[in-house]
Amino acid sequence: MATLPRQLHLNAFLRNIGQHEAAWRLPETRIAGITDIDHYIDLARTAERGKLDAIFFADHPVLKGKTEFRPFDALDPFTLVTALSGATSQIGLVSTASTTYNDPYSLARRFATLDHVSKGRAGWNIVTTANADAAANFGYPNHPDPDHRYRRADEFLQVTQKLWDSWEDDAIVGDKDAPRFVDPDKIHRIDHVGEHFSVAGPLEVPRSPQGRPVLFQAGSSEPGKDFATKYAEAIFTAQPTLEEGRDFYTDVKARIRRHGRNPDEVHILPGLSAIIGGTEAEAHALQRQLEDLTVPDYGLEQLSSIVGFPVTHDDLDRRLDFTDRQDTGTHFIKSRYALVKRMVHNEKLTVRELLLRLSGGRGHRVFAGTPEQVADTIEEWFTTGAADGFNLIPPALPSSLSAFVDHVVPELQRRGLFRTEYTGSTLRGHLGLNRPASRFTTAASAPAC
Amino acid sequence: MATLPRQLHLNAFLRNIGQHEAAWRLPETRIAGITDIDHYIDLARTAERGKLDAIFFADHPVLKGKTEFRPFDALDPFTLVTALSGATSQIGLVSTASTTYNDPYSLARRFATLDHVSKGRAGWNIVTTANADAAANFGYPNHPDPDHRYRRADEFLQVTQKLWDSWEDDAIVGDKDAPRFVDPDKIHRIDHVGEHFSVAGPLEVPRSPQGRPVLFQAGSSEPGKDFATKYAEAIFTAQPTLEEGRDFYTDVKARIRRHGRNPDEVHILPGLSAIIGGTEAEAHALQRQLEDLTVPDYGLEQLSSIVGFPVTHDDLDRRLDFTDRQDTGTHFIKSRYALVKRMVHNEKLTVRELLLRLSGGRGHRVFAGTPEQVADTIEEWFTTGAADGFNLIPPALPSSLSAFVDHVVPELQRRGLFRTEYTGSTLRGHLGLNRPASRFTTAASAPAC
Repeated sequence: MATLPRQLHLNAFLRNIGQHEAAWRLPETRIAGITDIDHYIDLARTAERGKLDAIFFADHPVLKGKTEFRPFDALDPFTLVTALSGATSQIGLVSTASTTYNDPYSLARRFATLDHVSKGRAGWNIVTTANADAAANFGYPNHPDPDHRYRRADEFLQVTQKLWDSWEDDAIVGDKDAPRFVDPDKIHRIDHVGEHFSVAGPLEVPRSPQGRPVLFQAGSSEPGKDFATKYAEAIFTAQPTLEEGRDFYTDVKARIRRHGRNPDEVHILPGLSAIIGGTEAEAHALQRQLEDLTVPDYGLEQLSSIVGFPVTHDDLDRRLDFTDRQDTGTHFIKSRYALVKRMVHNEKLTVRELLLRLSGGRGHRVFAGTPEQVADTIEEWFTTGAADGFNLIPPALPSSLSAFVDHVVPELQRRGLFRTEYTGSTLRGHLGLNRPASRFTTAASAPAC
Repeated sequence: MATLPRQLHLNAFLRNIGQHEAAWRLPETRIAGITDIDHYIDLARTAERGKLDAIFFADHPVLKGKTEFRPFDALDPFTLVTALSGATSQIGLVSTASTTYNDPYSLARRFATLDHVSKGRAGWNIVTTANADAAANFGYPNHPDPDHRYRRADEFLQVTQKLWDSWEDDAIVGDKDAPRFVDPDKIHRIDHVGEHFSVAGPLEVPRSPQGRPVLFQAGSSEPGKDFATKYAEAIFTAQPTLEEGRDFYTDVKARIRRHGRNPDEVHILPGLSAIIGGTEAEAHALQRQLEDLTVPDYGLEQLSSIVGFPVTHDDLDRRLDFTDRQDTGTHFIKSRYALVKRMVHNEKLTVRELLLRLSGGRGHRVFAGTPEQVADTIEEWFTTGAADGFNLIPPALPSSLSAFVDHVVPELQRRGLFRTEYTGSTLRGHLGLNRPASRFTTAASAPAC
């Protein structure tokens, strides 16, 4: 039997009615989509029609910034992705959830349940929550600093993994005659006691189809990369150029190896916001249309929060000057700060130019072109050591997702880079990942593979 | 236009594969149903076919007791009910959730999202969590006492209601030309600071179809009744006899009035576990079959935890003696303790007899009979001041639910006591409840009804 060539992994990051901050102003965009389940069902089914690995939603446990000027993620992502489980049957369902503003028992219980109700399609994008304003919704005087957040996240992962392992696969006996419903020797307390958590366990959810949900992470800072390479099975990242993408890929794969893990079992998925046109001119016209609809007010606020000092209308035609600025830590995503600084330095961008670059992808790579050109850049990154696939971030929804599925996916399939049918029905199956064994299952009792 | 006679409200309480502790041992019961979404989809659609008001699931954030001898609620109820939203279109979706082991911001966000994705069918059964073992899954050295739990619950309700009100109905403007996505004057911080919670708000979820989810509660203790009559829009209760049901009904309706609320807008729904047969003999044979399949081990453990002292196999043929027992508060549900004490006293039950009574309904009323006899008892309670409807607790699933929907519902419809079609598509609509206005909406800006 011929071995399949290495296959791309494609994940659709669905941001309400579009990632581009001006997408809502396009004539065809339906404002009500922001809270309309039918809008999200349409997106999920389009992504499944395109045989994508998964759809995924961000998590913001706080109403962010200047909502006057742009939409926002208005629904709880876990509840949304759960509601979509019944409208789809094969595509992976990934929700972001915070280790800072959840407790591990409840979160483990919810994800194990999602894995059951979706029949093995659950994924968790682990975040520590970057937005400092979230603290005020949870009774904390201050947002914990990154080191504290990552220490808590590490212990959070230990606890949730133990809880997911707390039922062995064959714990339910269901012997009506004995009678014996479960074998209590195959259900384990975890009795975790640590710096942040004390959790007795076991979970009350029997072991789920995938054993554990697939773990995603997007850390690009030092502690973030360390955490991601220790736990994640797929890593999201914002890489604006091929060269930076390759550097990140090489660095992260080496770190994975240093953690004693197989780098082939951790997929690196850079963000890609593709503006697709039938011709190059059409794609660029759509990009210009989006730029023309962008107002600076929202972007200035976002940029100010990234760099940690106020950037105003008066600065629009200047270049940001970082020389007297300390890396003070007031900005909330270190990797995003470094990225912006690098963009200004390398590309000599004015604030106005920088805002246009950020408006489309919020730091993620924006590429405008024909389906063939989009496939070309995907293939180049994929075959030259910069990516195992992509986190697709459609600038406008549903139009940009449909364009990708209808025109780019067939081109990738023609090139033999992407599946033409799902070969399994679990997210682990799509990603080529093994189902983990429970730590409590002894070799003697483990079922044969 | 003729006024409809007062209508029953029927809610289906779905406990995994059956409320009766021996239901899993019936030959037809499918063990795998416990974690199988298709089992729950089947139940939800059966309940919707019967035009019931809602389905509802319990919440146990801990693996309870002797699972060797009986099934348990194995899935997170909120996630389960959310997954069922897409498989149904009209029936209400009620999840239990604890005010002791949740934070109000996250919970408000989830329920508002469920209300959006279900298009107005969300209900929250508020509990403070009675099982003391839950504390060990959340890092608490001890389970908080009832007074503390109810004080926290009260503040929890204040916070969540403010959060659900934080968006006025017309806050989303979506003016593409202005551009103006929302009107920030119609989105309100709540800035709640209290004994248990500090929450800034606003929620990031725009106001949902029902304004707020419908609130259910099952407090039967003194603080429980006080809480329920202050907040709940439907009250679950365990009442073994018509006389006790009437006393409870009269007491609770008076308390509702004392809180300045309209007693007609709070429905009292006693539990009813109906064992249905084509003839009386068939019904009693099914009841005997269930009794014969009941083993005392599980029931003895449950009973011990209710009464607060050990009850063993040696006690099976004695009557429990409460004379030297203090109401020590070690037992975890005060109202259940009082109920058991009353049953032993009034009906002179041995422990064995008591266990059989508890095995079917865990304190809820069990009634075996023909569809006509079940309809008779429902009609009697409904028309003589003991109930506004019932919380149906099918002893075996799916069989007892199907029997009720196929045989009892048509009988109730023939008698003009129950709807033959849904007249609306929201849970508030089914229950005849008004949609609450946001506290932040001024009279001038309120939309006309």
